Amino acid sequence: MVVKVYGDYANPKRVIVCLIEKEVEFEIVHVDGLKGENKLPEYLKLQPFGLLPVVKDGDYILYESRAILRYYSEKYKNQGSALLGNTIEERGVVEQWLEVEAHNYDPPIYNLVMNILALPLVKGEAEDPKVTKENEEKLGKVLDIYEERLSHTKYLAGDFFSLADLSHLPFTHLLMNHMKKGYMIRERKHVSAWWDAISNRPSWKKVLQLYK
Amino acid sequence: MVVKVYGDYANPKRVIVCLIEKEVEFEIVHVDGLKGENKLPEYLKLQPFGLLPVVKDGDYILYESRAILRYYSEKYKNQGSALLGNTIEERGVVEQWLEVEAHNYDPPIYNLVMNILALPLVKGEAEDPKVTKENEEKLGKVLDIYEERLSHTKYLAGDFFSLADLSHLPFTHLLMNHMKKGYMIRERKHVSAWWDAISNRPSWKKVLQLYK
Repeated sequence: MVVKVYGDYANPKRVIVCLIEKEVEFEIVHVDGLKGENKLPEYLKLQPFGLLPVVKDGDYILYESRAILRYYSEKYKNQGSALLGNTIEERGVVEQWLEVEAHNYDPPIYNLVMNILALPLVKGEAEDPKVTKENEEKLGKVLDIYEERLSHTKYLAGDFFSLADLSHLPFTHLLMNHMKKGYMIRERKHVSAWWDAISNRPSWKKVLQLYK
Repeated sequence: MVVKVYGDYANPKRVIVCLIEKEVEFEIVHVDGLKGENKLPEYLKLQPFGLLPVVKDGDYILYESRAILRYYSEKYKNQGSALLGNTIEERGVVEQWLEVEAHNYDPPIYNLVMNILALPLVKGEAEDPKVTKENEEKLGKVLDIYEERLSHTKYLAGDFFSLADLSHLPFTHLLMNHMKKGYMIRERKHVSAWWDAISNRPSWKKVLQLYK
């Protein structure tokens, strides 16, 4: 069964890189959030909140990118990369950092994306430098904690790659390559090495290739 | 081993009600966020972001309330209430609604709590009616989707109680009892029945008893 992934842009890529890591076949159904296609009745039947992505796997429909990550990592536990750690304790730490990504890392970086990339593109308005400054400061504080953490372990949840790392890929890629804020990563030695390790995985390179 | 739960107020209660459901012994270590005790160096050693709660279980330390819920539900799979569903597919849907709670439900209700309860208490400032109106509207839209969902299934993830429901308890309790906005729940028939079902569980009554 080929998994259908609805959506483009950053959040759906979180799911796609996971499916590649898990060696699960998928196809992308384009739903353009910038054109409001995620608010059309047909899409709202799949995702009542009008958010991207959704997956459809036969009759099984699931939304919320991080829920989808967990589902496929569990379903194909013994296929492709292990993404949840090897013990219940390791999985606990994976869950912790996946939550940190969602609640501490994602909000400021999402605000930067909206302010620097989406605002000019969608509304034709200029970036608000105050919003940029505020969120860059917030993100910097989070990255300082990451730097300390990553001075002890190679990846966020320990010395193993996991969903906790993978979940950072799409938005950090935008930060580095589309917002010209790579210095935030590069000026922190351990964060920088971590970024190289995760962004050089064949799975992520394949995602970039897909969206070239 | 008795699990130590650091913190008071809403987010730690999410963990405590879960430990009661799972029949896990715990003790509460008071850390008063309103007094800034969560920003003291001793606490930051446990939780570098200065957020509540943290659990300490022997040498194992874990933070982020929803990560802790998942850890104990998995660790004590066959003890107390099943909170993750019975199949991988059911767990997927539990994860989906747990993410909906975190990303769609929690933000407006958290803003209401900060504006209506915390602002006057901590800063001695009056509630901002504009903030209240805005977030009440947002929450109302989320509750409309819940109403539709709960007209098909008894609980959010299906006809079984799960972490997805449990995670709503502390903040919805504040909405109903401390912010006098119970009408938001009561004017929606299925949401109202769901609230009765989850808030009448002995586990939640025990939490309220603990904090009487």
